[in-house]
Amino acid sequence: MSPASPHHTTLWQVRSQRPIAYDVVKTPGLFAPGNTTLLGYGRPGGRRFVVLDARVWQLHGSQIRAWFAAHGIEAHYAIFPGGEEHKNIDALQDLARALDAFPVHRRDEPLIAIGGGVLTDVAAYLAASYRRGIPHVKLPTTLMGYIDAALGIKNGINFGTSKNRLGSFEPPLAVLLEPAFLRTLPRRHLANGLCEIIKLAIVTDATLFTQLETHGARSLRLAFATPEGDALLDRAITGMLAELAPNLHEEELSRKVDFGHTFSYGLETRHPQRLLHGEAVLLDCLLCSLIAAHRGLLPDAALQRILALVRQLAIAPKPDVLEVELMWQALQDRVQHRNGLQRVPLPTAIGQCTFAHDITRAEIARASAELQERLLHDDEPTLQR
Amino acid sequence: MSPASPHHTTLWQVRSQRPIAYDVVKTPGLFAPGNTTLLGYGRPGGRRFVVLDARVWQLHGSQIRAWFAAHGIEAHYAIFPGGEEHKNIDALQDLARALDAFPVHRRDEPLIAIGGGVLTDVAAYLAASYRRGIPHVKLPTTLMGYIDAALGIKNGINFGTSKNRLGSFEPPLAVLLEPAFLRTLPRRHLANGLCEIIKLAIVTDATLFTQLETHGARSLRLAFATPEGDALLDRAITGMLAELAPNLHEEELSRKVDFGHTFSYGLETRHPQRLLHGEAVLLDCLLCSLIAAHRGLLPDAALQRILALVRQLAIAPKPDVLEVELMWQALQDRVQHRNGLQRVPLPTAIGQCTFAHDITRAEIARASAELQERLLHDDEPTLQR
Repeated sequence: MSPASPHHTTLWQVRSQRPIAYDVVKTPGLFAPGNTTLLGYGRPGGRRFVVLDARVWQLHGSQIRAWFAAHGIEAHYAIFPGGEEHKNIDALQDLARALDAFPVHRRDEPLIAIGGGVLTDVAAYLAASYRRGIPHVKLPTTLMGYIDAALGIKNGINFGTSKNRLGSFEPPLAVLLEPAFLRTLPRRHLANGLCEIIKLAIVTDATLFTQLETHGARSLRLAFATPEGDALLDRAITGMLAELAPNLHEEELSRKVDFGHTFSYGLETRHPQRLLHGEAVLLDCLLCSLIAAHRGLLPDAALQRILALVRQLAIAPKPDVLEVELMWQALQDRVQHRNGLQRVPLPTAIGQCTFAHDITRAEIARASAELQERLLHDDEPTLQR
Repeated sequence: MSPASPHHTTLWQVRSQRPIAYDVVKTPGLFAPGNTTLLGYGRPGGRRFVVLDARVWQLHGSQIRAWFAAHGIEAHYAIFPGGEEHKNIDALQDLARALDAFPVHRRDEPLIAIGGGVLTDVAAYLAASYRRGIPHVKLPTTLMGYIDAALGIKNGINFGTSKNRLGSFEPPLAVLLEPAFLRTLPRRHLANGLCEIIKLAIVTDATLFTQLETHGARSLRLAFATPEGDALLDRAITGMLAELAPNLHEEELSRKVDFGHTFSYGLETRHPQRLLHGEAVLLDCLLCSLIAAHRGLLPDAALQRILALVRQLAIAPKPDVLEVELMWQALQDRVQHRNGLQRVPLPTAIGQCTFAHDITRAEIARASAELQERLLHDDEPTLQR
């Protein structure tokens, strides 16, 4: 740390490493009376600020309260409504005030976030920001959180008209997966998470894609409460973490998991009442698959499998939200986000992709028109080309 | 990343390292026409979002604008008023909206923060939060920033009634020190920074303390524009970085640099119109020195040198802000912040300290009463005991 002086300047160099280590633990029966998994994070007893989804509170609140009480933990429950419209700076401030009124130790009384992707994003951002960071544990209760949103270190809130415009990279103490939470989800929210699994399969994992073709529909119907459904989720989590872990801070901006996350930003921001995140992502995935096919990058047989899977699962949203100008503007913002290049993942086969930097407005328009035509005919038994 | 299943749980482990590397560079003539130091951070040309202190803009704005224009950089200047009362979430949101309206690349068009400690704290927090982090370069223009606030990786804003309640740890791309900025500072703001140097000297560096005794008064009078003043600042920076660098994320909560930062939180929050940060810190340092002396930890000769230095420099604020209840409450909040222990640095000699965890309200009251008595008699040539 001693200064060196070449010519007139004086230089001090700061060099360090921040180690990152956290576990993702699937624990059926997480709030069963004898389950001690959650006790492994934070000091015995003490206090916990628990941010809880309103619907989870209704369905599982008494069990969760009983568990904390039985283990001598003084918990404050901040009930959060969930939903993209609450992912904002006002909600963050409300939570910060509640946390300020229930002081916790800075290091050994972690914030506990129990809810969907919006809730864990907001609560983790609060934890990351409060006193410049207190530890947090994420317990996803939606499929979207379980296989995607809660697994990594990203958090954030929407700001202005932009999704996740403010946020941070902050590793959790742990991510605890309780599959029982999935059993009480409405079908649309199960489908919402399934869209991210489809996304992952198309660009990274042909075996997962085959599992979706074989077991997807039944798994969706039974809320993944079968050995095949469980295995499908395990594989999706393994695949997702394999993509995230080597690139936690997104040093590499060309990310396969950004498949479906280019045009979707515009769609879900403009149509928050009509589109869930996964639904917008699925439309984007289909759009990009068509663009890839038009470019001759994606073989027709692969395109047909993708369309057939979506058809079989009956999860495609109405495509009347596909406004070309909106999607073109979303692409421009992604170019800033991806440091000057489009870096749009385009599938080249089931399980593989490349990155395009030169997608034109005309290509978006053509793919959009074709997709509207194909998805509107959803009364047909299979899609025709 | 493959799951292992002991009993019924399934475990995935995420392990990584985040490298941290940044330079602190003293560069006289930073905005002289031919100086290219700042060009070393970010891509050639392009855009820069520059957050600038209003007073610096008045004094140095035309030179700064000319420099960016000469190097073909399209800059947006966000003029920030400075001052603790603007270190809040509204100011942060205003800046975020302005940044949103002037899109920059996520990685190679760093935000440039030019101003005092409040400005670099707010601007660095904005950079750390925007798109979950864009790079930033800090150019401190006050002595407080130059030797303390801008050197580390901490940023933040005040929230509720608490200082820096929201913020993050985010390394800058670089910290560039231009001593010329110090020359136009009012005496009170030079003294404000000097208080942090005194703090550092008392608990870590006897040689720096001697330098302060020998050259402090003249350096202050001449805005540190002498070889001795410059050497004094270099040594303070070296000492500060030696404390910060091994503990950037404050894994170790017992920090020597927290000397003077316990009771001061209450004082400056309650009396923002009357106390600058450094002034509150100095009062806290004196209070803790008295507590240490009362405990028999700090020899009387050392206490006398501390009081004599403050007297010689004529920088002690009026002690009528020392409300015991306020300081006691501030200590309670620090206990939460320091994870359940007081961890209050108390000097044991010039250049050394220990940590106390059992300071009582009565000790604060006694030290406070004595300090008020001593500082009120500031017309005497030296302090009597």
